[in-house]
This record gives sequence, C-alpha cells and structure tokens, in this order.
Amino acid sequence: MMVHNHCMTVSVAIAGASGYAGGEILRLLLGHPQYLSGELTIGALTAGGNAGSTLFEHHPHLLPLADRVLAETTPDTLRGHDVVFLGLPHGKSAEIAEALPPSTLIIDCGADYRLKDAAEWEHYYGSAHAGTWPYGLPELPGNRDVLAGASRIAVPGCYPTVSTLAFLPAVAAGIVAPEVTVVAVSGTSGAGKSLRTDLLASEAIGSARAYGVTTHRHTPEITQNLSAAANSPVTVSFTPVLVPMARGILATVSAPTTVTAAQAREVYAAAYADEPFVHLLPEGVQPQTKSVLGSNAVQVQVAVDERAGRLIATAAIDNLTKGTGGAAVQSMNLALGWPETAGLSTVGVAP
Amino acid sequence: MMVHNHCMTVSVAIAGASGYAGGEILRLLLGHPQYLSGELTIGALTAGGNAGSTLFEHHPHLLPLADRVLAETTPDTLRGHDVVFLGLPHGKSAEIAEALPPSTLIIDCGADYRLKDAAEWEHYYGSAHAGTWPYGLPELPGNRDVLAGASRIAVPGCYPTVSTLAFLPAVAAGIVAPEVTVVAVSGTSGAGKSLRTDLLASEAIGSARAYGVTTHRHTPEITQNLSAAANSPVTVSFTPVLVPMARGILATVSAPTTVTAAQAREVYAAAYADEPFVHLLPEGVQPQTKSVLGSNAVQVQVAVDERAGRLIATAAIDNLTKGTGGAAVQSMNLALGWPETAGLSTVGVAP
Amino acid sequence: MMVHNHCMTVSVAIAGASGYAGGEILRLLLGHPQYLSGELTIGALTAGGNAGSTLFEHHPHLLPLADRVLAETTPDTLRGHDVVFLGLPHGKSAEIAEALPPSTLIIDCGADYRLKDAAEWEHYYGSAHAGTWPYGLPELPGNRDVLAGASRIAVPGCYPTVSTLAFLPAVAAGIVAPEVTVVAVSGTSGAGKSLRTDLLASEAIGSARAYGVTTHRHTPEITQNLSAAANSPVTVSFTPVLVPMARGILATVSAPTTVTAAQAREVYAAAYADEPFVHLLPEGVQPQTKSVLGSNAVQVQVAVDERAGRLIATAAIDNLTKGTGGAAVQSMNLALGWPETAGLSTVGVAP
Amino acid sequence: MMVHNHCMTVSVAIAGASGYAGGEILRLLLGHPQYLSGELTIGALTAGGNAGSTLFEHHPHLLPLADRVLAETTPDTLRGHDVVFLGLPHGKSAEIAEALPPSTLIIDCGADYRLKDAAEWEHYYGSAHAGTWPYGLPELPGNRDVLAGASRIAVPGCYPTVSTLAFLPAVAAGIVAPEVTVVAVSGTSGAGKSLRTDLLASEAIGSARAYGVTTHRHTPEITQNLSAAANSPVTVSFTPVLVPMARGILATVSAPTTVTAAQAREVYAAAYADEPFVHLLPEGVQPQTKSVLGSNAVQVQVAVDERAGRLIATAAIDNLTKGTGGAAVQSMNLALGWPETAGLSTVGVAP
Repeated sequence: MMVHNHCMTVSVAIAGASGYAGGEILRLLLGHPQYLSGELTIGALTAGGNAGSTLFEHHPHLLPLADRVLAETTPDTLRGHDVVFLGLPHGKSAEIAEALPPSTLIIDCGADYRLKDAAEWEHYYGSAHAGTWPYGLPELPGNRDVLAGASRIAVPGCYPTVSTLAFLPAVAAGIVAPEVTVVAVSGTSGAGKSLRTDLLASEAIGSARAYGVTTHRHTPEITQNLSAAANSPVTVSFTPVLVPMARGILATVSAPTTVTAAQAREVYAAAYADEPFVHLLPEGVQPQTKSVLGSNAVQVQVAVDERAGRLIATAAIDNLTKGTGGAAVQSMNLALGWPETAGLSTVGVAP
Repeated sequence: MMVHNHCMTVSVAIAGASGYAGGEILRLLLGHPQYLSGELTIGALTAGGNAGSTLFEHHPHLLPLADRVLAETTPDTLRGHDVVFLGLPHGKSAEIAEALPPSTLIIDCGADYRLKDAAEWEHYYGSAHAGTWPYGLPELPGNRDVLAGASRIAVPGCYPTVSTLAFLPAVAAGIVAPEVTVVAVSGTSGAGKSLRTDLLASEAIGSARAYGVTTHRHTPEITQNLSAAANSPVTVSFTPVLVPMARGILATVSAPTTVTAAQAREVYAAAYADEPFVHLLPEGVQPQTKSVLGSNAVQVQVAVDERAGRLIATAAIDNLTKGTGGAAVQSMNLALGWPETAGLSTVGVAP
Repeated sequence: MMVHNHCMTVSVAIAGASGYAGGEILRLLLGHPQYLSGELTIGALTAGGNAGSTLFEHHPHLLPLADRVLAETTPDTLRGHDVVFLGLPHGKSAEIAEALPPSTLIIDCGADYRLKDAAEWEHYYGSAHAGTWPYGLPELPGNRDVLAGASRIAVPGCYPTVSTLAFLPAVAAGIVAPEVTVVAVSGTSGAGKSLRTDLLASEAIGSARAYGVTTHRHTPEITQNLSAAANSPVTVSFTPVLVPMARGILATVSAPTTVTAAQAREVYAAAYADEPFVHLLPEGVQPQTKSVLGSNAVQVQVAVDERAGRLIATAAIDNLTKGTGGAAVQSMNLALGWPETAGLSTVGVAP
Repeated sequence: MMVHNHCMTVSVAIAGASGYAGGEILRLLLGHPQYLSGELTIGALTAGGNAGSTLFEHHPHLLPLADRVLAETTPDTLRGHDVVFLGLPHGKSAEIAEALPPSTLIIDCGADYRLKDAAEWEHYYGSAHAGTWPYGLPELPGNRDVLAGASRIAVPGCYPTVSTLAFLPAVAAGIVAPEVTVVAVSGTSGAGKSLRTDLLASEAIGSARAYGVTTHRHTPEITQNLSAAANSPVTVSFTPVLVPMARGILATVSAPTTVTAAQAREVYAAAYADEPFVHLLPEGVQPQTKSVLGSNAVQVQVAVDERAGRLIATAAIDNLTKGTGGAAVQSMNLALGWPETAGLSTVGVAP
C-alpha cells in the first residue's frame, strides 16, 4: 500500500494515452478537484505506435493538454510517478507492471489481472495467466477495504461492471436461481480504436449485431463476480450486441425467481441505499444510457415477470466512464485516501 | 376465400396510408411485378386525422404517388376494393372489417385478430377480444395452406415475427426446455409515428433503453407461436430495447438445452432449407439488421453455450418490411395465388 | 446592475426547467464551484404544462435534483431569487421580466430581447418588439464591460453564436467583402422538445435536410452581430441543415476575399489569442462537434480558397452549452463578478 | 460503341466487388429486369486484397450471390465480358481499361477519366492524366446522345452529381453570377471502406466535421460541369461536411442573383420537367436524404433570399445510388439501348 503524504503532489502517468481509456481518464483528471488544486499533476503520457505525436491529434476534445507530446510506453518513461494508469492491449500490462516499483499505484484498465482462476483465463484468452490484483469495483461487498490498501488494481471490464451491478443484489440475496442470462447492448467505443471494417461508421450506423456469442471474454469475469456474491457457483450466458451509438451499455440480466416484484424491489433498494454511484430508479422507469453519458452513475431497475417466473434487472452505464476511466479514477481515489467520488459526477450529458 | 380471376385487375386500398405500415406497403407495391404489369392497381389511400392532405406530405419518398390525396378511413372509402390493408391503431380494425364484404381480402397490420385466447387479449390489451384471423406468418408449419384460402389475415407483430423465426426450429424439435428468454433491440419506427417525447430524435439518438418490461403486448403472441410449434406450453420472458436506428430488430432468444452446437445447427438447417426468406447464416456469422434493411429477409444464427447449457438463437429483420409491410404483401401473394415472393426482395440496402 | 455581496448566497431560479435549455443550465450549475461551495443555491424550478411533475421525469440525467417538483412559471414563483434564467418559448419572456424587480438578474435564453432593430424583429417574428437587452456573447468587442454591469441579459441564439464567432475576426479586420454565406449543420436538440413529426427519431436518423431556407429567425441576429463587428452593413445568407445527432453545430461561413491563407490565419490568431473559450485549431485541422460536446468551447478554423477567392471559416459548438446554457452561465458569471469560466469546461466528452 | 444484339445475353463483370461501389452495383443488378429475365448475367466479381474470399464476407446483404468467390482484379479475369464496372481506387482504372478490348463497355466509378483538363487533374490529383471519357451524367444537356454511343463511361463523383443537378438550371439560364458556393453534408459511405480512425463509428457518430476544405478533388469536376452548363467560366468554392449517417448527401448551393423566387422556380420547373430521376419538390418543401435512400432519385428545391440577393438551391441524393452505382447502371442502360430507368427506382426506403 502506498503511503500518501497530503502535503506533496501526486504525479500521474498514463500509458496508452492515445486510446479511448487513456483519453477518458485524462478527461476526468482535468476536472478532478485535486488536479485543479495542484495536488495531482499529470506527468508522462505514453503510447505505442502513436509515440511522438501530440495528444491533440488523438483527443481534440482535451484542449488543455493539446500540445503534450506522447512518449513511448516503456518502464523508463513511466517510472517516477506515484500513479500509473495502464490502457494497454490485453497481455501487455505485466511487463510494465513488473518493471515498476511495488510502491507505485498501478491501475490497469486491461484484463490481465482481473480473473482469479488461471484455468478460466487460459480458456478464454489462450495465454498464461499473469496473476490477480484487487478488483476495482468498490461496490462489491467488502471491496472498499481491499482497494483502500491497494497498490495494484485491476479495473473491471465494462460489461462485467454493468452486469454485476445489475444482478448483485439478486444473487447476494439468493432470490434467483443461479442460471443467469445477460444480453447487453453496447456502443462502439467499447471496442476501442481498432481499425476494423465492422467498426466503420458506414457499417455500424443503422445496424444492430450480436458478437462473441458464447465466447466473449467478459463471461468468466461476470461469472466470477456473481458467484462471489452468491457464495456459490452461478452460470452465466452472455450475449453482447453492438448498436449504433458511441458510448453506453444497457444490460438486461435475468434469472428464474419465485419472489414478487415488491420483494425484489426491497432487496435492491436495501442493497444500493448507500452507494454513491448506483441508483435504483423509481418503479417502472427504465434506465437509459444517455442519462449516464460521461458520468460515473449506474442506473438500475428491477422487475419480476410473474408469469414467466423470471427476475429481470436492467442497468445502464457509460462504458468509458463507470465502465473504464471512471472506475479507474474511483479506484485511485480509494487507494489514495481521497473522497471516493472526487472528480466523478452522477450527472449525465443529455439529451 | 376470394376467387381471383387472373384476367382482371386487383384493386388495393390502404387504410392508414399516412403511417409507417401504410407507407411501407405502398413502397413494396410500387415495385410489385403485378403493379408494374397493371394487374394490381392502387386505389383508395385513407387516413384519420391526415385525411385531406397529400401522400407526399407524409411519405416524400413515395414520389410516384406524391399527388394522391388521402380520403377519410371509412367503410365507404374502402368498399369496392379487392384487397384492403389496414394500418390502424390497435382496436380500430374490427369496425372497418365488419362493414366490408366477406369476399374482400382484408389484411390487418394491427394486433386485433392475432391472438387466439380471448383471456390473453384482455389481460394485455384491456379490451374485448375481436376474434382470431389466419395468421400471416407463412413460415409456421402448415400455415401456407391456411393463408392460401384466407380472406382475412392478421399480420404478425414485428417482435413476434423475429422471435418466432429465431426459435421455431428449437422448440419444434424439442431441443430446448420450454422457458424462453427474448431480448430484442429495435429501431424507433416500431413505435410508429406517435408524437411522444421519448421518441424524439434528441432523446433516442445516443441512447439505449428497455421498455414494456414484463408487460409488452407482443409477449402473448410470441408465447402463442412458440407453444403451437412446441405443441405444449412455453413460457416467454420478453424484453424489448429501443436503440438509435430507424429500422431493424435484432432478437436474442435463448433457453436451456442439452444438445451440442452441431446438433442445433442441423436442426436449424433442416428447418429453413426451403424457406425463401429465412436464411441460416454460415457458422459463426451473426445476423445484422442492416443486411436486411428494406428487404423481406430474415437472417438467423444459432449457437450453444455448452458451459451455461443454453441454446442462443439470434435473428434480424427489418421491422417495417418482414416485420409489417413485407409480411402483409407476402400474405396477399399467398391469398391471391401469386408467387409468394412477388415484390419482395432478399437483398438489403447496405451499408 | 446587481450589487452582489460575496458573504451571502445567490439564489437561482429556472423558468422552463423541463426544457432542454433549462436542463442544460441545471447540468452546469450542479458542477459550478459556487454551487459546490454553497455560495449559489438552486431555488424554484418552474414549468408550463409540466408543472406538478418531478424534474426526474424530464431530465433523468440530473440525479441530484431528481425529486424536485416543478412549480408553475409565474412571477410569484420566480420572485425573491437573485438570478432568474428564462427558458421559455419566444414571446413569453417579457411578461415575466416586467413583473420581476429591476435588481433581479434575468438571463433570457429566448429571442425576445436579442435584436436591436424593431423592424427586423417584426419582419422575422411577426409580433411587437419587446426591447433590447445586453447581449450575452462576451466575445464581442467591448461586450464584457456591458455584461459586467447588466441585470438583464439576452443569451444569443445557437446559430448566431457559432456563426458570429466563426466570422468575427474576418469582418472586424475587413478582410472579406460584406456578403456572407452561412451553412450550418445542427443536431436536433436545437429545435427543443417540440412534439413534431419531423423531429421524431425515425424521421431524423439517417437523414439530412435544410429548413427555414431564407426565412430562419436567426438570420437578423447573425446580421446584427457581423454588421456591428464590421461597423458597416453586412448581408447574410443563412441556411441551417438538420443532421442526425442530438447536439452540436458545425458552421461553414464564407465570403469573398483577396487575402492569403496566411494573412487570414494571422488575423484569427490575434483575435482569439486571449479568449478562454474560443480556440483556433492548428493549421489544417477542422473543428468537429464531438470535440466540444458538453463543453463551452468553440473550435474554429480558417482557410482561403485562393482559386475561388473566398475565405472559409468553420466553427463547432455544442448548441446546448456554448449555444445556450453555457452562454447563460458565462453571462451570469460576468454579471455577478465571478470568474468568467467558473463551472464551464473547455473539455468535451468524446468519443 | 458496342453493338448490342437483343437475342443474346449481356455478361457483366465487376472489378472491386468487395467495396461499396461494387456492392451497390450488384444490389441494383439483382433487381434489374434484364437480370431477372436472364438477358443480363453477372459474371466475374473481382477484388484486390480480398480476392479469394466470398462476396458474403463483404456484403452480407447480397444473399443471392453470397457464395460467389472473388477473383483477382486482372485483365484476364475481366476479359470476355460485355460490360465491366470498375470500382477501383483512383489511378487504378487505366491499366485495366487499356488491356480490355475497345468493344467492351467499361464503366468506371473512379475519378480517372472524369476531367477534361489535364492541368486540373494534375493540380488536384498530383499524377498524370489518364484521359477523358464520356461523362455518365445523362441529365447534362445533350449528354444522353453521347452516352448512347459510348463504350467507355466515367461515372461522376457523388458531390459533383448532386451539386451539378442542384445548380445546372440556374447557371444554364444565366440567372446567377458565376461565383458558386457549395456546402454539402455527406454520410460516411462516400469515403469507402477505408480503415481510417476518423471513419470509425465511435468517431463519426454524434459528430459533424468539414474536411478537404479548399482542396477536395471533386471541386474541379463541379467547376467543369457548371462552366459547361454556363458556357463560360464559373468559380466554385466547395466545402464537404461529414455527418453521422451511412448514406446520403444534401447539398446547399448558392450564388448571387437578381431574380425573384418565382422566376427561379420557373427556370427549375422547365429544366427538370422531363427528367425521370430529378424532381423539383413542391414550393417550400426541402429535400431530405432519407427520401432518396437506395433510390436513383434526386430531390431538388430552389429559393431566393431577396434580402441577401442570393439564389439557394438544395438537392439530395443517395451517394451510393445516384451518386455512384445507380449512375453506373443508368449509364449502362443508355449505352446498351435499354430503357434508361431499368432497374432504378425513384422510391426511397424511408423512414
């Protein structure tokens, strides 16, 4: 655990600053009270192939840092910072992490250190398991204590975040059978800036399409979270669907139940009463992704289809904020002993 | 049943011509070979509040009929046509239908005559049940024979069409447990031209939102279809999700299974081998709504998540074509003894 | 001019809180440092037909104020506040404004008090001219002084803001002929929450369409601004184009010129060197609306087509932020003697 | 000129079949009456890097040809066809064209043979000029006769098509000064399938951006067309703007005028009275791109801003249909002596 002296500034570096995760972390840091007060400074911004170009070329929305030149992502350029955010392709974090001092707070937006079960990692990723770090979803029971003492944090995937928060109360309370179905629609930024034909605007606009059916790598992570909450194995069938928007995920999560709608609502209301970012909406109102755009909020609703005997929870997040960069900042806040909500809003940009 | 003399022209009227269903039927009729050859003529176009205006004001894409003035929707304006398409609000069809001669082929795009079970109708619609007409989904086993002899046809709902075709082979073959989960993402045109704040572009663009959770009126229709195919009761949990596109539905339908992916594929391949509009895609390729835009095609894929023990079928349609106007024309073709595919394409407008 | 005592809190009311302008002002106030420190309080939120409903029903993205109940928009509900923002339909502001004390800072997002020339008002709006207030575009030469002493402020229209800032340097420096052409593409939120068929998502998605050609009411406002900057009459041909996005305007403004690209660039660089919100982009980089989404920034570029003899300036704003709510807050800051940029960001939400 | 024997079939090849131009030509051919009657056959489909893959992988909407395997684009694979469509990158057509027999009807969707002035070509394209072919815009005065006798045709660019048709009547009638301003908003498919970051859905959705300001290669083509129509030099300032839709261009074209709106309307009505695809809309109604989606129609409107002394014409096309593939088929029809409108619709797919 990092010893943090409040009289000193905290320097932050971002590896993968030209990507969407890096850009979102920077967007949030530029409005973070500790940045505005000078307590947090933005140090090295690094990239792979984009090293040498300016941040402006990749993120023209980050005007205050427009002239920053991207360094190369190496242990040397990242060393000497108190906090290092990693927004790297899967499989690239370990090398960097191992070369940095144990006292550096490393917050990894990649998947490398999320899974506990090496066999599951190997099944889905086809490579050797790097290890397991404290998991940056503070809303998991008991997890804030873990993050408070962490110097290594694995930021959850976007689908696991929204799916877990949609169903955590239900599985924790044991009011559903442990066979969970998740169908989550997502904007395209979840796929990053990859130059793939299917991510071109001409292809994605006006179209909806499932992908990764039965094979998506977020499946074991959702399973891990829900099984932990249930304290017993849960199976998860997960289908992501790409829809024509840039940001946002709306997850529909269901499982067999015998409780009533009122009972389910009570469970959810109790579970989220004190959460700063997770909001159970008024009865009958469904979450929409636009309401949480750019914010760290999670909007949740729960219903029970008594005819079909199924509990149906829905949840909306911004995949880049609560689903990536916001969770990273929330984790940093906890690890550094800052207010958990610092620099994070529950107000979306709508319409 | 209508006796159709091939030496005479068939005159067609459209009630609700200013709406999306009416506009889509007209779009298809303008390219129908029988219209191009003069065998089919487009007669009265009628509307409710829009009576007196030109078709152009409502459908500027239908240039060849731009100057047509809309008459009022009454039995009088519709009488005397061989075929009458109804694109009316739910609950309005019966009055018109009862006033037209039994020999008129009436094809209703509304819900009024879709359900067989009056109690189900009353549960979901809260009004008296009008009755049951032959159901315009030719792909249901044995249904082409029924439609060939019909003078009254109820066009299926858009969600029931895509959900049923996604799961028909699985339930008919008995390879899934009878507890079906449907999550279907839809473009906004499924809601018609209603002036509702939540359907404004400013609200819908950039947002995904579930609606009608546990209460959507298409639920009993999906249940009816799948139960008929299974020849035993099936429960259906149905969640529609609105996404920012004008047309298209992508349904993800799943249920517990013990079969393998290969077995499931075999079942689907056999079921759809001879269907002119339903296409099982090559293994691993997922349907996308843009591929069927403006066409009557249904693209289907099936997968099995062996870890979760779940069969997952996905299907894409254009909700206004195969989901409404195309099914109406397909039904007309069958009822009149014309080639089933006349005027209907399997080629979408993409990208 | 309002005497502002820094030891007291400033209470703010919003008339038209259920509309897009009202929602955007509230979104910005919730992040305003004076609100966070308790120096600014959010008082009455009022509406017309929506009075009696909660703010959540209209702005589910404004979670911290979700439970606020909207009062009716009357002088009584608005009286007693230090600042009153008006987000009312055109023609409705005068009645309210006249009933409030002269010391109240009234900031009107409507058009009523923007034009100086009563004849122009009557030509375009067809009603009696209400008067002229200080104009809330601080970037106009000398205008910050005017706003610092104001207790009545007319917030500029969205198109006039972006068009004026795109061309102000050129006309002020006299490097263009005074015949200006503006073509500006806009997202749909510029039209407000009006329930109009052409604003439905099904109609707007996938479509671009000009409107108000030769008659748009923002024309005289752009003309007034550019003529003032030129210190002589300028003619303006203005064509707005609706495109499928919720927020954002990209204006292309041009006029005959004889200067070179380098000369034009120099003029622009000098004009905007000290502006906190207006940014001349690096040579060759074009503004895009997404870069300024949710921010008060204006991104500007200037080019000269030497073959056609035309100077072409382009500018992007968020029509709801810098184009409405942000300008309102910026004006409030100036009028109250707060830092002009308080609560306003130059960082957009992208991608 | 090709001698066409109506008793024989016409075989067609497409080079660049995996791209958007190739896909659109195929979509139209699949509905072409001569294809349906067997008079036209679809022969070789070729590609560059995509050779060896199936058409389905690139165009899942073209189900009837799904299994076709793409050959390599070489003179050998294309030889022996009566008609060869080229959808190749600029600069690649000449090599193919020179290797095919003079009797082959070659219809080039690229820019190589559009310009008459070699200096203009070199200025904008920076390479040697390949030559000039008959120009596939039948609506240019006298051009149908040229195309009827052609065995080489250069299909116009999308922006030149819509801009020329918007302003042709005005310049031909001499009712405007010869200084023309074009601002045209376009969907992303105009850029083809290029893997560029700025064309990713995450970047393009929710954003509008000008590009190619003062340098776009379609400028000399618009200039050439309008100067020919005016029979004297016209200058053109052209600014294209990318907006978040897949298909469609809406051009706003203006120039100084002294005529009245009524006079302008008369000129346009006369000019387009007999054109099968160009429609002057009723007074006051603006074209929208969705109305022409997938169709070969051009919707045009003309207005005069008498205060600004400017004639403003607007026009909408589908950039892939009338802007590329439709024009190619229309040109083929003329060259082969088939009805000009065969296989081409004036009915768009809306909403």
